[in-house]
Amino acid sequence: MDIPNPVHRLGPLAPPPRLLCGPGPGNAHPRVHAAMSLPQLGHMDPLFLRICEDVKELLRYTWQTKELFTIPVSGTGSAAWEAAIANVTRPGDVHLVCVNGYFGERHCDMASRYGATVHRIDKSWGGVFSYDEIAEALLQYKPQFLWVCYAETSTGAKQPLEGIGPLCHQLDCLFMLDTVTAIGGIPLFLDELEVDICYAGTQKCLSCPPGIAPLMLNQRALSIIKKRNEMGEKIPNWYLDMTMISKYIEQREGAPRVYHHTAPISMIFALREALTIIAEEGLENVWIRHQATAEYFWSLIESVGLEMLISNKEFRLPSLHTVKVPLGVDAAKAIQYMREKFDIEIGGGLGSLAGKVFRIGLMGYNSRSYVALSVFSALVEALKQQKWKPSVSS
Amino acid sequence: MDIPNPVHRLGPLAPPPRLLCGPGPGNAHPRVHAAMSLPQLGHMDPLFLRICEDVKELLRYTWQTKELFTIPVSGTGSAAWEAAIANVTRPGDVHLVCVNGYFGERHCDMASRYGATVHRIDKSWGGVFSYDEIAEALLQYKPQFLWVCYAETSTGAKQPLEGIGPLCHQLDCLFMLDTVTAIGGIPLFLDELEVDICYAGTQKCLSCPPGIAPLMLNQRALSIIKKRNEMGEKIPNWYLDMTMISKYIEQREGAPRVYHHTAPISMIFALREALTIIAEEGLENVWIRHQATAEYFWSLIESVGLEMLISNKEFRLPSLHTVKVPLGVDAAKAIQYMREKFDIEIGGGLGSLAGKVFRIGLMGYNSRSYVALSVFSALVEALKQQKWKPSVSS
Repeated sequence: MDIPNPVHRLGPLAPPPRLLCGPGPGNAHPRVHAAMSLPQLGHMDPLFLRICEDVKELLRYTWQTKELFTIPVSGTGSAAWEAAIANVTRPGDVHLVCVNGYFGERHCDMASRYGATVHRIDKSWGGVFSYDEIAEALLQYKPQFLWVCYAETSTGAKQPLEGIGPLCHQLDCLFMLDTVTAIGGIPLFLDELEVDICYAGTQKCLSCPPGIAPLMLNQRALSIIKKRNEMGEKIPNWYLDMTMISKYIEQREGAPRVYHHTAPISMIFALREALTIIAEEGLENVWIRHQATAEYFWSLIESVGLEMLISNKEFRLPSLHTVKVPLGVDAAKAIQYMREKFDIEIGGGLGSLAGKVFRIGLMGYNSRSYVALSVFSALVEALKQQKWKPSVSS
Repeated sequence: MDIPNPVHRLGPLAPPPRLLCGPGPGNAHPRVHAAMSLPQLGHMDPLFLRICEDVKELLRYTWQTKELFTIPVSGTGSAAWEAAIANVTRPGDVHLVCVNGYFGERHCDMASRYGATVHRIDKSWGGVFSYDEIAEALLQYKPQFLWVCYAETSTGAKQPLEGIGPLCHQLDCLFMLDTVTAIGGIPLFLDELEVDICYAGTQKCLSCPPGIAPLMLNQRALSIIKKRNEMGEKIPNWYLDMTMISKYIEQREGAPRVYHHTAPISMIFALREALTIIAEEGLENVWIRHQATAEYFWSLIESVGLEMLISNKEFRLPSLHTVKVPLGVDAAKAIQYMREKFDIEIGGGLGSLAGKVFRIGLMGYNSRSYVALSVFSALVEALKQQKWKPSVSS
């Protein structure tokens, strides 16, 4: 053997038990971990396909949509996102992108790779767009697709969505919504919002590890794919080709399932269990819990004179919180202290917010008062190490 | 709520304990399932990045390569395959594809989506190519890339590889090798074979669930990516862009890791454990075990007058076995009987072998004499249901 065996040098796999309160992954629900330990089924096994159908149905409930194409994509949230773009975007199509954080930037990059003409409107990170701002841009750019992020994980901002879907449809534009940090955390009614294309992550409010990702395409989106097929156009991405995948993942009268790629069995078990846990609690209760935990956390933060990046509570996410880094504090050092002293992970800022905010996720299984109190208390301890002093509110 | 809660109708997740002896997934090692139950770490956590480094090093051992870019891709084997193509193929590049089964067909489709000119040579399914046949085609088509499948999961054929890599390099062609059902199951020395680009699956001989996939790019392959970057060419695939991913997954002197997408944490734990288990047993012992189990299984099959599709043992895989369906037997019915009566999964034939062969995987954790005996005995029972009678060898 030319390449020596490294096993004794590497030792066993022994990750410490971190409390994951960064921008995600959060801690998965213990029942979700247990689901990954269940014996696998083959990807063509009728019982496995039944489980896939359960996942699709549970996604319809969690997203509040009647659309049938609500499927798990075999990758992380970004894979479902890329699938959303790749399947419907033809070269020259216009994507209008509402950029108010890191993920808007990413959509511009992703869409351009499929030959889209990208137009963007910008807000400072942490801001949200008004209906009028979006309407004006829609009229100006006449896009085929509007991309909006409901829950910007890089800023903690919650984008108001009222009226955007119907306006898109008046203008013959499809409404593409990022719900990565929204699903299972904030009230979300895809059909009522007239969302055409939607994807999500599992490692945030769904309390499931990353590695599988929900995707919804409605009839408008599917009809684009159908037209492309009729014209003999193959999409420039084999792995995420929904025409092929639909023959595996969709129940079709009298047609057998056709193998495309091997589904990630254990991750689909995990997602099935995660969605079941949400359904057991009840979607409305889950939303109420997130909001209550968030408000408790905000009250703690403000009680010691710390400040939230987003001043207006109406535009704050209940799942991901951006706390301003106090003057004179080195954010990276505070984050490191929390990790090393308390085994608690929180995140730092990205892009224009680097060094300026802490990103604290209280998502899914971790949206609980004791977690909010723990992460708050540890943050205060970390800041005190850098001579910061809490101000006592009167 | 417009969409009612389906949870009570659906009931709990309760897959039966199948013995998975189809073309994959096989049963994962119990320790691998346990690794997925370990508490997650954040994807930017230094301890998680250390675990990724372990995976990369264990892959180098398992593949026997000194190349440093041996990474886990965030998807199933097909995602690593697509990454292999997408990152190096420029429109107009010639791919020469050796098609002797289902997966060669797939490569033609995948490569064409990235603008490649695809030339193919064909063998009947179950056959293998001679060195001379490949050499002749290389001289004729002058490809930039030659694609070969070492272990054709659709046929059970093992393609001889001697001399192909060096010949490619004389002709300025890169050698791309599919090792999905080979890795951890058959002797495989990437550097000795002069392989430039390689990918694998985890759900076969690695005894790990699908959802994470090894990818190797050597210096020749990476230099193509570097050149494309220098020309300002972005690849038409964001999720699998190795230029971006390398900034996350590679240790770079003095440069911090840059977030690209959230790594599938629990699947990477699973792969780390699966590769560790192989390294503990020792790669040579693993190969010897697969070969011994295979020979025992072949002897059982032939002892009752059943026939292997591939007559020459030299070209048979030790991991995936194609047994001819006896005259008068309905393969689908036999497969169903084995699943329903014994909870044993085996596979049927694909494409031109549909209905003509059973595909039986004895891979990784399932490459053991008792599994070989169980699946054989159950197959005999299933065939007897259809009036087939074993012939007693003299």
